[in-house]
Amino acid sequence: MNLSADKILHKVKNARPREECGVFAVYGHTNAAELTYYGLYALQHRGQESAGIASFNPLKLHFEVFRGMGLVSQVFDTHTLSSLQGTMSIGHVRYSTTGSSTLLNAQPIVVSCSKGDLALAHNGNIVNAASIRRELENKGSIFQTTSDSEVILHLMAQPTKEDILGSFINALKKVKGAFSCVLLTRKGIMAARDPFGFRPLCLGKIENGYVISSETCAFDLIHAEYLRDIEPGEIISIGEDGLHSYSLNEAEHRKAFCIFEYVYFARPDSNISGLNVSKARIQMGRELAKLYPVDADIVVPVPDSGNYAALGYSEQSAIPYYPAFVRNHYIGRTFIQPTQLIRDFSVRIKLNLIQQAIKGKRVIVVDDSIVRGTTARARVVNLREAGAKEVHIRVSCPPHRFPCHYGIDFPNPKSLLANQLAPEDICKYLGADSIGYLSYEAMIKACSEAHTDFCTACFTGNYPVDFDPNLDKLILERRSFLENFS
Amino acid sequence: MNLSADKILHKVKNARPREECGVFAVYGHTNAAELTYYGLYALQHRGQESAGIASFNPLKLHFEVFRGMGLVSQVFDTHTLSSLQGTMSIGHVRYSTTGSSTLLNAQPIVVSCSKGDLALAHNGNIVNAASIRRELENKGSIFQTTSDSEVILHLMAQPTKEDILGSFINALKKVKGAFSCVLLTRKGIMAARDPFGFRPLCLGKIENGYVISSETCAFDLIHAEYLRDIEPGEIISIGEDGLHSYSLNEAEHRKAFCIFEYVYFARPDSNISGLNVSKARIQMGRELAKLYPVDADIVVPVPDSGNYAALGYSEQSAIPYYPAFVRNHYIGRTFIQPTQLIRDFSVRIKLNLIQQAIKGKRVIVVDDSIVRGTTARARVVNLREAGAKEVHIRVSCPPHRFPCHYGIDFPNPKSLLANQLAPEDICKYLGADSIGYLSYEAMIKACSEAHTDFCTACFTGNYPVDFDPNLDKLILERRSFLENFS
Amino acid sequence: MNLSADKILHKVKNARPREECGVFAVYGHTNAAELTYYGLYALQHRGQESAGIASFNPLKLHFEVFRGMGLVSQVFDTHTLSSLQGTMSIGHVRYSTTGSSTLLNAQPIVVSCSKGDLALAHNGNIVNAASIRRELENKGSIFQTTSDSEVILHLMAQPTKEDILGSFINALKKVKGAFSCVLLTRKGIMAARDPFGFRPLCLGKIENGYVISSETCAFDLIHAEYLRDIEPGEIISIGEDGLHSYSLNEAEHRKAFCIFEYVYFARPDSNISGLNVSKARIQMGRELAKLYPVDADIVVPVPDSGNYAALGYSEQSAIPYYPAFVRNHYIGRTFIQPTQLIRDFSVRIKLNLIQQAIKGKRVIVVDDSIVRGTTARARVVNLREAGAKEVHIRVSCPPHRFPCHYGIDFPNPKSLLANQLAPEDICKYLGADSIGYLSYEAMIKACSEAHTDFCTACFTGNYPVDFDPNLDKLILERRSFLENFS
Amino acid sequence: MNLSADKILHKVKNARPREECGVFAVYGHTNAAELTYYGLYALQHRGQESAGIASFNPLKLHFEVFRGMGLVSQVFDTHTLSSLQGTMSIGHVRYSTTGSSTLLNAQPIVVSCSKGDLALAHNGNIVNAASIRRELENKGSIFQTTSDSEVILHLMAQPTKEDILGSFINALKKVKGAFSCVLLTRKGIMAARDPFGFRPLCLGKIENGYVISSETCAFDLIHAEYLRDIEPGEIISIGEDGLHSYSLNEAEHRKAFCIFEYVYFARPDSNISGLNVSKARIQMGRELAKLYPVDADIVVPVPDSGNYAALGYSEQSAIPYYPAFVRNHYIGRTFIQPTQLIRDFSVRIKLNLIQQAIKGKRVIVVDDSIVRGTTARARVVNLREAGAKEVHIRVSCPPHRFPCHYGIDFPNPKSLLANQLAPEDICKYLGADSIGYLSYEAMIKACSEAHTDFCTACFTGNYPVDFDPNLDKLILERRSFLENFS
Repeated sequence: MNLSADKILHKVKNARPREECGVFAVYGHTNAAELTYYGLYALQHRGQESAGIASFNPLKLHFEVFRGMGLVSQVFDTHTLSSLQGTMSIGHVRYSTTGSSTLLNAQPIVVSCSKGDLALAHNGNIVNAASIRRELENKGSIFQTTSDSEVILHLMAQPTKEDILGSFINALKKVKGAFSCVLLTRKGIMAARDPFGFRPLCLGKIENGYVISSETCAFDLIHAEYLRDIEPGEIISIGEDGLHSYSLNEAEHRKAFCIFEYVYFARPDSNISGLNVSKARIQMGRELAKLYPVDADIVVPVPDSGNYAALGYSEQSAIPYYPAFVRNHYIGRTFIQPTQLIRDFSVRIKLNLIQQAIKGKRVIVVDDSIVRGTTARARVVNLREAGAKEVHIRVSCPPHRFPCHYGIDFPNPKSLLANQLAPEDICKYLGADSIGYLSYEAMIKACSEAHTDFCTACFTGNYPVDFDPNLDKLILERRSFLENFS
Repeated sequence: MNLSADKILHKVKNARPREECGVFAVYGHTNAAELTYYGLYALQHRGQESAGIASFNPLKLHFEVFRGMGLVSQVFDTHTLSSLQGTMSIGHVRYSTTGSSTLLNAQPIVVSCSKGDLALAHNGNIVNAASIRRELENKGSIFQTTSDSEVILHLMAQPTKEDILGSFINALKKVKGAFSCVLLTRKGIMAARDPFGFRPLCLGKIENGYVISSETCAFDLIHAEYLRDIEPGEIISIGEDGLHSYSLNEAEHRKAFCIFEYVYFARPDSNISGLNVSKARIQMGRELAKLYPVDADIVVPVPDSGNYAALGYSEQSAIPYYPAFVRNHYIGRTFIQPTQLIRDFSVRIKLNLIQQAIKGKRVIVVDDSIVRGTTARARVVNLREAGAKEVHIRVSCPPHRFPCHYGIDFPNPKSLLANQLAPEDICKYLGADSIGYLSYEAMIKACSEAHTDFCTACFTGNYPVDFDPNLDKLILERRSFLENFS
Repeated sequence: MNLSADKILHKVKNARPREECGVFAVYGHTNAAELTYYGLYALQHRGQESAGIASFNPLKLHFEVFRGMGLVSQVFDTHTLSSLQGTMSIGHVRYSTTGSSTLLNAQPIVVSCSKGDLALAHNGNIVNAASIRRELENKGSIFQTTSDSEVILHLMAQPTKEDILGSFINALKKVKGAFSCVLLTRKGIMAARDPFGFRPLCLGKIENGYVISSETCAFDLIHAEYLRDIEPGEIISIGEDGLHSYSLNEAEHRKAFCIFEYVYFARPDSNISGLNVSKARIQMGRELAKLYPVDADIVVPVPDSGNYAALGYSEQSAIPYYPAFVRNHYIGRTFIQPTQLIRDFSVRIKLNLIQQAIKGKRVIVVDDSIVRGTTARARVVNLREAGAKEVHIRVSCPPHRFPCHYGIDFPNPKSLLANQLAPEDICKYLGADSIGYLSYEAMIKACSEAHTDFCTACFTGNYPVDFDPNLDKLILERRSFLENFS
Repeated sequence: MNLSADKILHKVKNARPREECGVFAVYGHTNAAELTYYGLYALQHRGQESAGIASFNPLKLHFEVFRGMGLVSQVFDTHTLSSLQGTMSIGHVRYSTTGSSTLLNAQPIVVSCSKGDLALAHNGNIVNAASIRRELENKGSIFQTTSDSEVILHLMAQPTKEDILGSFINALKKVKGAFSCVLLTRKGIMAARDPFGFRPLCLGKIENGYVISSETCAFDLIHAEYLRDIEPGEIISIGEDGLHSYSLNEAEHRKAFCIFEYVYFARPDSNISGLNVSKARIQMGRELAKLYPVDADIVVPVPDSGNYAALGYSEQSAIPYYPAFVRNHYIGRTFIQPTQLIRDFSVRIKLNLIQQAIKGKRVIVVDDSIVRGTTARARVVNLREAGAKEVHIRVSCPPHRFPCHYGIDFPNPKSLLANQLAPEDICKYLGADSIGYLSYEAMIKACSEAHTDFCTACFTGNYPVDFDPNLDKLILERRSFLENFS
């Protein structure tokens, strides 16, 4: 055997777009940190590179925080969880969006400032972070992370006569972009959602306390009762005097709910704006079948995100549903990757094909999205080798042609297959017999039970909030330090 | 927060029956250990508590072995894998069936004896191990593990004039029960399957070498070509002079293929005796729908093992299939278990219900088996709370009433729900509106494309190979040492 | 066995006073981070709870930092060390002085600010950190650590027209107390020592580059040439245009070199201000023998810090030296501590007595200091049980009666034995036959080859730099957050 | 920085000869395993690569064992230690003498056989293990370790009518060489020492129970009372009916106590045959000073094993003792080793020289032994560079010219400097001004208070027990399997 030097331990990379974060908070429960732990467990799909929980210890009168790299179940143990005392906690799971994983940027960020002690957990992306940061540095601020979230705390810390709530509201009025965030103070919990409502955020009740979560699925696990979604532009403050709601918006405002949460990111058992995610996906599959019918033998989903759309396609078309790709449930976070020994290894290690189910069949493959196309292409080869007579690709959203600036980590446009090629060329590139993307209108229709005010920038290039591409470069340039982590 | 002392870190226990082992072997490939690593990866579902690989280093002229507790991806790293040189390797994954995990019993077992150096990896259960062991001890043998597999090597080591092959055959003639095993010598690889063929074992080709695996799904990952199943009672020897086949059976022999491999254990993408496992399950679901039709709104599988049977039921009954239980894919091997905070925690942490999909519906739940019934019961409560109008349980095999003595770790009969209660009482106990178990005949019919010679002892109590219940106790008594593992 | 629940894994606590930090820096060497690693290795005695290295990667144009809890050899591996590229590095080892170990406070601290990217490693204690911090918070600064060192970077970041050097000098003019620190910028390395010169700091040469270290022993390991001590009040800047020296002091200034570095902290193979530490200790032992002679059979050192003083005592008194306390070299950082099973366990686990050497003897025990007295007392019991006829304690410095505010972590005054009792009562408390402390004058005399300008505040209460005890409390109150670390 | 690929993480290799093992046992104490843990802690210097403890759980009626690679403090934690229940325990620390560390050979070895369950921990070396092993294999035994100790258990397991004691005695009559071992059965503890008494073994009392240890220093830590040495050829059995002593020797027998235990291996605070080890070393130093006086300024020990001999030399010669080599106490078990960056790195990382103490001096360096000479040579260079005017090497034993077959791991004869060169050539090779080895007679004289019946084979080649060099090769050849350990 000659394991070459470069055959190192690789992380299991998901070729799919990656959501950056999930947030969770508990107010008024004696097991606040423990509930936060389970909440993060349920939100794990929103970020798998670091996890953290902060709480306020009312006896020792200080904040306690524990953060680490890895899954929630890897970061915490009974010892560390027990050390997080008190009845108020906030938590965070995240993907690192820089090249390397870095503990520096793990959240919650905890600081001491003129407004007292504060801890922040943030999901989203602040598009004017770079210019605010430059301005703050010029006033004397020092930045210890490369996260855009840090600017919120710096803005709050500026010398004003405002109380914490006032400074939180004012800070959020200055930042532009996507934010669904929770803030821990010595007196309570606050939560805020940007005026466009890009990322979800919802409110629940547990015994006499409150819980806040990126998605409703976290409420189910801990038997919390869903109360309502936090509104775009709403700020909530929970303390001894109960729950109060404030508004960031002076005037009425366009909404821009991220539609990709329905398409791919959110868990199927979550409801967003009252619409269940699995139901939205089934409806997308049905619309897709109406738009791109084809005479075939089986409908095969790309697990797991394509499952419900494939079901919808199957129901609409009356072509049998067959989960012919089998997922290896024991795939670790890391494995030893062979460089050349096994062709298409990273595709095969996760999904194996039931060859007998495919042989001689005309196959419709339903996927939730095609980003770079490399995995989709390998999958077609796979199907052909197994004896598929025809391979028809159906995608349950329109072509991804533009990057997201509001919290989703797509590859750069040049790597987006649909940015470079027209659908018919994509079909050729993938080696398929036909391809069909869900239309913009059909996608909106499938979700219309919830809203029609969606952010669809990644499909249309129509960005609800401006961003300065030059400043964006500056951010990267200024991402000038890096904590390595083994 | 008051994390009580007993709220310790629990292993994720599977309430389901557990297969004990998977085996893999490579002959004649320069990356033998690396291929074995990927083979074990694909067989991980057959055993998740320990993993090991042995190989013969032709330069240093010695055997090398690495074994550890945990998943294949946790046990091996590039360093340990690189240290396993040579063109021949065998590997093993296992569940520990004793109360505690124990490294002592991890396989391959490697020994030095009068026949030279030998390494053995074994899947199955030898029912006369206790009496052979007593006999061997009386002759002077010492046992360093509590595994029944060790007796095979002791029998081979007895002073005879036979060569390794001869002693392997003779040893296997003496042991009774289930064995699908692979043996590494300094000169080659051997493999054997007991005359009843309880556990699967198959042969493949990779470049100029051979591979042997418990299941065919491992061949797919490494691009090996499936050649054929190793026959019940067949011994294969692969060396410099090629592959030779021998027979253990003097006379024709009843076969007894474990049918539970189709029902639950094997991966759906594996083929056993030419029959694809997912196909068998779909056929079971169809038969179930014929036997126990009911007027309902949706068919909900218990993931993942119930998925295909539910599909079959849905197709046959024309009632829509809805995967309403959502699996948390990021559930770790260990997590912090709350004792009282969260009701039905261990059910909920793995599966969450899409409540909107259930509300007001008459639900058919398709499960592959009900063992103790505790999880199934919690699931019914779950469905009722979500607003299910009716809950109909359908099980894709007959009631499990008897223990397995051939390699599957069922709980003791008193804990087997169907051993204690009649179906109608089970239905009451579970709180369901109706229950339906697949009949024996229908189960056989669903798999008849492969065989009709199955071992169905766990359903019928009809054991193909005798076992002495007193000796069995002796084994447990003699399981008298234990290596703790943190 | 009944390991009670509270018999948990304890850290090996050193009952002795603890130095807080060691710093190291390299400029102009291709293996800068690697040399820093070895430098920190040699400085490990100055801090064992966390270690960190920062370097500037000239290709990627960013700072890289790796910090972790534990010994240098535990924190770094080849992978993490290799990731620290570039020809300039700074490093730090530290004790945490708060109750819990905390990664938050590990150094170097790395920030981005109006002056660019900066990394700082600091040894010492800034006595006006609390008031500066309050002032900075009122201006809008946020603090992410509870370390007093962070204020230096905040002061540098204030909006001024100064360059980095200017802002470094001005920041250091504002802070009071003890600082020996190194600063990494994108262009070079700076180093500074407070005007009193509390903590040591020295300059060396390696090939065409420079090295800076808390102690000279680090130079020996890496074959660097010692050039000179950095002067009290001196700032050094090393860059492309070579090394430049600046002064913090407007006027001549009293010096206050910490004499306890000679007595206990520094390694015996280091030279401070030209005086070798082992030599100073031998001289202390000689002076002690002159002041407190006693008729006895053997002189026994308390290893390792009492070794040289005991040798000096033995030489002066002509009483044989016998290392009768044997140190267990394999004692880990953590061990399982029995609560009651073994009397005086924490004394015995580290040092065992050669009983045969003691039996019937009149013993002089030479120790470098007595802080709480608990260990010293157990040691006397030990000697009596071994059959010592007389036990005479000799201490190579005056009684410790006051806390240190300049970087050494003594217990609070109430726990300082000499703060509570007169020497004759200490003798009774310890159960010794006589006790003798080195006099102030003799201690100064023993070190006079180097200086006579020492800080002796822990013996005399005469503090060279004022501190506000109320502000000091404030610091503790404001130590309001805490990162737990398992 | 260019950390080359081969600059991997090295184990801290001790260039000195290595003792292979230490054993410990407790009978009749409720904290048996815990006491064994502390006993092994005190014996850690006798073996640092693996540690293990076995005990008999009287409630579960089975043996429990935990073994691991590394130091005692690394292998065990409260969890694993708590799992070892019962009032009888045996423990073991060992060096692996094969090239790689291997868990396979960690002891105690635990087996089940015709005599019941047995656990063995062994210190020594059985010279006829290979021939016994071949004989046993021919009878049908299988070997699962490559340790010579395994043969003792196989011999005991042979089918006879003897009870455990009888089979233990008979087994030990068959093996030749060095053994000091402890055996755990379900009923009690046994201990045995070979007729020559090569390795030490002693008996103590703790409360109502007994303890057995390789060295007395382990008794001190746990407050056990030393009763006596176990005699050469004595077997002790401790059970419910108390302690009984048996003899292996039919006739009177030559004794052959390993004198190297006094010279180097044993801890200075241990007593062997009533003679304290530090005292023996001081006497060796005195004899050395009488034999090889030289006019010089200081006597410098090579720490730590040369300390007492250097003291003896200093006292006899009246030349001052100066510990000028300073040991780094924080050196980890592993560190990152530079290949070329730092000259003599492995010497310097452990010991640094106090240069000021050496400059212009005529130095006598006292070492306990010179094996390969590489370290000694680097040390002379070190002293010269520091300015030593003369360097005189004095060694506190005769030249090592022969390998040890009774439990000490010397390098092969070709690497033994004194096997290749005469003392005057060694002096030249090392670059010293003079060299003096203690004479055989003077060494015996220094230890004569204990015995005069020593094994001195490594100095004289006079082996008390024959060994077959061909069989020895066979052992190595048969060391044919290897468990890798990361």
